[in-house]
Amino acid sequence: MSNRMWGGRFASGPDAIMEEINASIDFDKRLAGQDIRGSLAHVAMLAETGIVATADADAIAKGLAAVRAEIEAGDFTFSRALEDIHMNVESRLKDIVGPAAGRLHTARSRNDQVATDMKLWVRDTIDTLDEQMADLQRALAEKALAFAGAVMPGFTHLQSAQPVTFGHHLLAYVEMLGRDRGRLADARKRLNECPLGAAALAGTSFPIDRFMTARLLGFDRPTANSLDSVSDRDFALETLSAAAICAVHLSRFAEEIVLWTTPQFGFVALSDKFTTGSSIMPQKRNPDAAELTRGKAGRVLGALQALLVVMKGLPLAYSKDMQEDKEGTFDALQSLSLCLAAVTGMVRDMQPDLKRMKRAAGIGYATATDLADWLVRVIGMPFRDAHHVTGRLVALAAERGVDLEKLPLTDMQDVEPRITEDVFGVLGVERSVRSRTSYGGTAPANVRREARRWLKKLEKGRKAKPAGS
Amino acid sequence: MSNRMWGGRFASGPDAIMEEINASIDFDKRLAGQDIRGSLAHVAMLAETGIVATADADAIAKGLAAVRAEIEAGDFTFSRALEDIHMNVESRLKDIVGPAAGRLHTARSRNDQVATDMKLWVRDTIDTLDEQMADLQRALAEKALAFAGAVMPGFTHLQSAQPVTFGHHLLAYVEMLGRDRGRLADARKRLNECPLGAAALAGTSFPIDRFMTARLLGFDRPTANSLDSVSDRDFALETLSAAAICAVHLSRFAEEIVLWTTPQFGFVALSDKFTTGSSIMPQKRNPDAAELTRGKAGRVLGALQALLVVMKGLPLAYSKDMQEDKEGTFDALQSLSLCLAAVTGMVRDMQPDLKRMKRAAGIGYATATDLADWLVRVIGMPFRDAHHVTGRLVALAAERGVDLEKLPLTDMQDVEPRITEDVFGVLGVERSVRSRTSYGGTAPANVRREARRWLKKLEKGRKAKPAGS
Amino acid sequence: MSNRMWGGRFASGPDAIMEEINASIDFDKRLAGQDIRGSLAHVAMLAETGIVATADADAIAKGLAAVRAEIEAGDFTFSRALEDIHMNVESRLKDIVGPAAGRLHTARSRNDQVATDMKLWVRDTIDTLDEQMADLQRALAEKALAFAGAVMPGFTHLQSAQPVTFGHHLLAYVEMLGRDRGRLADARKRLNECPLGAAALAGTSFPIDRFMTARLLGFDRPTANSLDSVSDRDFALETLSAAAICAVHLSRFAEEIVLWTTPQFGFVALSDKFTTGSSIMPQKRNPDAAELTRGKAGRVLGALQALLVVMKGLPLAYSKDMQEDKEGTFDALQSLSLCLAAVTGMVRDMQPDLKRMKRAAGIGYATATDLADWLVRVIGMPFRDAHHVTGRLVALAAERGVDLEKLPLTDMQDVEPRITEDVFGVLGVERSVRSRTSYGGTAPANVRREARRWLKKLEKGRKAKPAGS
Amino acid sequence: MSNRMWGGRFASGPDAIMEEINASIDFDKRLAGQDIRGSLAHVAMLAETGIVATADADAIAKGLAAVRAEIEAGDFTFSRALEDIHMNVESRLKDIVGPAAGRLHTARSRNDQVATDMKLWVRDTIDTLDEQMADLQRALAEKALAFAGAVMPGFTHLQSAQPVTFGHHLLAYVEMLGRDRGRLADARKRLNECPLGAAALAGTSFPIDRFMTARLLGFDRPTANSLDSVSDRDFALETLSAAAICAVHLSRFAEEIVLWTTPQFGFVALSDKFTTGSSIMPQKRNPDAAELTRGKAGRVLGALQALLVVMKGLPLAYSKDMQEDKEGTFDALQSLSLCLAAVTGMVRDMQPDLKRMKRAAGIGYATATDLADWLVRVIGMPFRDAHHVTGRLVALAAERGVDLEKLPLTDMQDVEPRITEDVFGVLGVERSVRSRTSYGGTAPANVRREARRWLKKLEKGRKAKPAGS
Repeated sequence: MSNRMWGGRFASGPDAIMEEINASIDFDKRLAGQDIRGSLAHVAMLAETGIVATADADAIAKGLAAVRAEIEAGDFTFSRALEDIHMNVESRLKDIVGPAAGRLHTARSRNDQVATDMKLWVRDTIDTLDEQMADLQRALAEKALAFAGAVMPGFTHLQSAQPVTFGHHLLAYVEMLGRDRGRLADARKRLNECPLGAAALAGTSFPIDRFMTARLLGFDRPTANSLDSVSDRDFALETLSAAAICAVHLSRFAEEIVLWTTPQFGFVALSDKFTTGSSIMPQKRNPDAAELTRGKAGRVLGALQALLVVMKGLPLAYSKDMQEDKEGTFDALQSLSLCLAAVTGMVRDMQPDLKRMKRAAGIGYATATDLADWLVRVIGMPFRDAHHVTGRLVALAAERGVDLEKLPLTDMQDVEPRITEDVFGVLGVERSVRSRTSYGGTAPANVRREARRWLKKLEKGRKAKPAGS
Repeated sequence: MSNRMWGGRFASGPDAIMEEINASIDFDKRLAGQDIRGSLAHVAMLAETGIVATADADAIAKGLAAVRAEIEAGDFTFSRALEDIHMNVESRLKDIVGPAAGRLHTARSRNDQVATDMKLWVRDTIDTLDEQMADLQRALAEKALAFAGAVMPGFTHLQSAQPVTFGHHLLAYVEMLGRDRGRLADARKRLNECPLGAAALAGTSFPIDRFMTARLLGFDRPTANSLDSVSDRDFALETLSAAAICAVHLSRFAEEIVLWTTPQFGFVALSDKFTTGSSIMPQKRNPDAAELTRGKAGRVLGALQALLVVMKGLPLAYSKDMQEDKEGTFDALQSLSLCLAAVTGMVRDMQPDLKRMKRAAGIGYATATDLADWLVRVIGMPFRDAHHVTGRLVALAAERGVDLEKLPLTDMQDVEPRITEDVFGVLGVERSVRSRTSYGGTAPANVRREARRWLKKLEKGRKAKPAGS
Repeated sequence: MSNRMWGGRFASGPDAIMEEINASIDFDKRLAGQDIRGSLAHVAMLAETGIVATADADAIAKGLAAVRAEIEAGDFTFSRALEDIHMNVESRLKDIVGPAAGRLHTARSRNDQVATDMKLWVRDTIDTLDEQMADLQRALAEKALAFAGAVMPGFTHLQSAQPVTFGHHLLAYVEMLGRDRGRLADARKRLNECPLGAAALAGTSFPIDRFMTARLLGFDRPTANSLDSVSDRDFALETLSAAAICAVHLSRFAEEIVLWTTPQFGFVALSDKFTTGSSIMPQKRNPDAAELTRGKAGRVLGALQALLVVMKGLPLAYSKDMQEDKEGTFDALQSLSLCLAAVTGMVRDMQPDLKRMKRAAGIGYATATDLADWLVRVIGMPFRDAHHVTGRLVALAAERGVDLEKLPLTDMQDVEPRITEDVFGVLGVERSVRSRTSYGGTAPANVRREARRWLKKLEKGRKAKPAGS
Repeated sequence: MSNRMWGGRFASGPDAIMEEINASIDFDKRLAGQDIRGSLAHVAMLAETGIVATADADAIAKGLAAVRAEIEAGDFTFSRALEDIHMNVESRLKDIVGPAAGRLHTARSRNDQVATDMKLWVRDTIDTLDEQMADLQRALAEKALAFAGAVMPGFTHLQSAQPVTFGHHLLAYVEMLGRDRGRLADARKRLNECPLGAAALAGTSFPIDRFMTARLLGFDRPTANSLDSVSDRDFALETLSAAAICAVHLSRFAEEIVLWTTPQFGFVALSDKFTTGSSIMPQKRNPDAAELTRGKAGRVLGALQALLVVMKGLPLAYSKDMQEDKEGTFDALQSLSLCLAAVTGMVRDMQPDLKRMKRAAGIGYATATDLADWLVRVIGMPFRDAHHVTGRLVALAAERGVDLEKLPLTDMQDVEPRITEDVFGVLGVERSVRSRTSYGGTAPANVRREARRWLKKLEKGRKAKPAGS
């Protein structure tokens, strides 16, 4: 139980320390699938170009499939002495295939191999994240459509500012996620060049066909400079940057859920599925999933910073520091995936309390801007003057302890004689939101249109994905 | 001189503290140009849609031009009491134009205004940075072409691994910068939606034409959700992410310049222009510009983290925390610009010492891989076996204290009888680099082709820019 | 107004770039006071040890005083061509004193000089921050004493958990600030070794007396290793770490102020002094100072990370990267100072709404734990069983829609027959807080005792400071 | 192998997501030892104060010992359904002890329990790290003593500046580690207050004795405010800050090892124990342990940032976000421990090449400062003038292509007639280092004295530790 655990291990001498700090198999075994895919493509190319005889290549391919089966079945014994996933796989391949296995590593090195594995993993993960983000967008847009006209306070500085609708608020996150997906898609496109064949750092004298391996692995093309190919971790940095921004978005939504589920706000309720209760206070619902989503932003930001620090000031080409790219990237992207799942679940689960929301929307003379706009639009006052008149009217209402719409017309006219009955048309919160019909505004009709546009787009996106991709 | 300076100021009471913490004019005055462009577009739209009379709009436009002229001439007195650039400009506009100035702020608020200003600034800066990056690519590609065949050691773990060419090494950075520019271009495209007209947070009831203002300001379209429009700082975060990755690239090159200019490496020399001398040690050339470029990566990484932290957990819509987006973004992007200028200057300035580079390339049996590849290619050994044989040959050479190419054939044949005279063809560093003809490999012919491809592409890029853009 | 500003400057060639990136006078002029103090101590020591003649030393000292006077009066022209504060001062000294000025730089270099200046600045700033933190503690403890018995909800997960008192809540921050001050005091003690005399990096052959300069500058002793003396920036890193933790504390309080001032919570009100109003919504009070305090945490965290990144991987001794220690440190510590002033102001300014707080404290069966504890204490049930029984009672109350204290005794006895009248004694929120008399608990008597203990301690701390220190 | 792994798990519905995001047992089981220590102290206090009967307390204590034995033996089945280590232990305790187990949780909650566990873990880890740092200091000081007079170049800007000794260079790191240990000791002292008894957040009405539990767990005293007790993670943040600074120190040394082991520098050699060889290039020794030490700085910096971000803006008291304090802290401190072990091993292992170091020390007129100092000391020139004269002499030597000490006296006298034969005494690198006798300077006698002082101090520190502590 002691934290001397690792200290104790070191006591056994430098070999133990070196193994502990150097071996990566404990975490890079997660790349097994990618590593074997890469080797299969490589050996197919070696055969096609005649660098390796077809019979040897066939044996190797069969052997690799056997290794993969063992790993998937959980029958594979990973060895720290063999350092990393590449050597673990190749060593087992040799057991199965014999000396021909030694031909697999022709015209490549671990430097281009690990870059390829890691790119494949990041690319696979981007695809998973994109699906999850789309799913969250769908959940939000569906909820937005259902509550397109549900009035709630729009906050600035967490003070009621102007009424908006719940649907409009949710669609703001659909926009953010749209940008998040755009960033991932761009990162995916940019990373989609295959490093395999850059070898240790200089390329090779074997007549390899890098375009073929690239194609077999779903890359758009091979990388253009061998030194860059093995020194580059931009793809992880860029993906982590996109993940960090998305994690910040989710943390904002999580903060809102925490706020909205307080007794003080009471805007939404979450079921037991996303809260933890307390056996002693049965109606206490701690929004744990939201809190953890908010907290995990820290982890993603930390992982981004960590890898930027690792890469800072590293001379070309491969340095061992770069092995530090893995654990943080794995953990951060997995955490983001978990948060996306949790937020999607909460969106689907949460029940708004429409009455409380609407009541809250009227607090604080939230339609004062509507009044000012009326003065500009109908009476033709310059906005700054209308602003001033409105201030006086609100002060009057506050003094009387009534809402703006309860202020008698005559009192209003004492302040500004040109005000007419017509003004009351803009003072209710429902009217207010309905009037905000400018493009992107909160008018329910706008919200419905936008929600439907997104749902259609998301449906299309889903269809566009070929089965099994 | 005391750092009580600001402490002292606070002693004068809460008003002083509030002004100190709240006023942004000291730094957001840098947005004056963008603010006025935004207002000009806004007022043109207000006139076109009939919300403001043409005469008023004309007066406002003329007034704004006058304010701009004052600011550009340095004749404008910025006032802290007026808090920010928006109020400073509007207040002066009122002096010039009279009450009609009060019509400018119709159907907008400072929330959408500052988002627009900041987006315009970031977009302008992206354009500047892109030009600088292209210029650095040009400098690198020209140097690469000139030194396409200059042999130097290729390092892994900062140990000589295999020979490469200086040109090939420089082109690795051209690739990195290519990705950096891609990231900026994607960020630019994604940010290019106009928030103006989102008003405080809910849109407006005035019949504004957001497509028109978007078009006038060079945006592709208006933003689609008013809450998102005023809460979003993704454009700064994404640009800072791209800047951070680029700063890391530059820090790597800077580290190499620091290494290469040591007496121990001596691969390149920088002139006085990018070093500081010492009057006492005349040939000491401190590579200050490289060191500062390396160091400034910290500043850019810090700014990215700072803004991510600011945005973490902020509920919608605008909160005052977001005012913290400016100083860090300004400073980080300006620092990157400075580093790009410095590195471009150093690339053009630096003189390689071809002899030392080539001599260093041969150290450490750097062509051992060529020997192993020869064994595979010519004799048909599996790579792992060839690897083993090569190890024994290098050990033999080391024992004798000679280079591989000086090892007598007979001694080689004692280890592996199938080796022939032909093997010596691959043991020189020049031969080694010439043989690496795989796509992306370091062969001088490859390097020349790549350098020319880039120069052509960069030339095209330059032509594609309309004059004055 | 264009952001080509700096780009444009570079167009004038490498000299402009080099000056731009290299010159530090724009920001290190802030060290003028520290620089001159250091030089005065140095020259006094040079005279005392006979390295410089007394007459020369006197002239230099007088000259330095004159330079200081010019700077303080704003009559000094800082020159970029002279790079930094050290050369600016020395150059002006030469104008005033003549060739004897050249003796000042004997047995020192800019490397030990800048380390000394920066340490003095950080030390001065620590002293200012400590005073400000003590002042904030005082404000909090005074308020805590005044509201030692004011009941409010104690939150976990931002859900009402158990009642506490407002005073108790405020004292939590007094504890945090106590640790913050402890960290600064430790940092101050650790940094208080004088680097002056380490010279460029190796020490000197002049018979200097480093103990004397250390003493004159208020350091406890000279640093023990000359290489470390000029390579060390731990003092800035440690102070920034302490600042970052404190900034996080302030961000938590700021978040609470933002929450508490919402119409939904309504626990406290801030006056105009720390909010910005809106001319249109007169009772809207945006808690700008709190939001900015929360936001500025990002800046301090960013500055800490930035300097850690700068120092990462730097070989000994001085590298120019280290010039990047200044701007971030200046800005972060000044920002913290500003936030401390703002929070102190807000604490003194804020008015709690005792009725709303107390009403909120009773929401959510917040005394359920008191009931469970009663079952353990009085009836002797194991806590886990008491927990279970309480759960059933709360469920019953919830079903009936009443508070726990309104549940008839007979109904309680249906669940657990051993319950007696006595139980009602623990069910009110006032009773609940009064019962929490364990050390550190929220009982008003505890809170009063703690508040008084702190006020006494703070008073003592104030007296302990010698006048003018 | 797919990274859908976790995505797939979510498909099974919200329960799976909630368990995945909420359960902490996978990582907090590492706190089992601390958790049981805390419970043993708690139950002893409950018995002593009569809150729990002695018989029950004895049964609980025995049961806890049994649980501990099971965990240590690896016979314990951790359950995700039981969420965390606290519930896992308590549940198993109930199996063993029966209903009496339910009395253990009297007057505490998981909130104070986890804070106590985590503090105990961090405190234990600080003790381990301190021992490791002391061991590294010892290794450095021993090496420094052995090579107190071994001349090597002292670098600034990675350019040779003045000769120093290898021992002096190593002692610079002993100083850094001394500060690192000071920071940890201060953090340990500051954290050493016991949160146990703060209960959920408000304290308790049971007559507990928090001073007793504090004493039993080796804390100096109980914490003074119950809200702060459960909301505070300063102890982790401060320890991570100290760890980050230490990681930066180690990264600097690691960078030097990487540099020194290049063929270009060749200052030191590492054995196979801390390098990885290459079967193909037998004398290639990749300094993997050094590179990973340098890289792991990123991880520690990232963990610090992550936890600062988690805590930023959290209202009091406990929020679930705080569960994010564990994994990063565990990983970062364990990584630092590993790096300390690796660096200590490398220091003991590394063999300096004294000849190459000395030869390098003379490059670049590194004794020019000695010449200038001679001019000041012997002839009495102002330093700035001496600086100028030296510049001319070095230029002359450079022109002739000779070292300063080979420049004929007459040529020197042409530049400055007052120069005498005596000057040659200061121009050799050995002489130069011997002359730097100022306190903290590099003179071998100084270095020996300092190394001995440290070794004695470290020996004392070792003796001061009571056995088993």
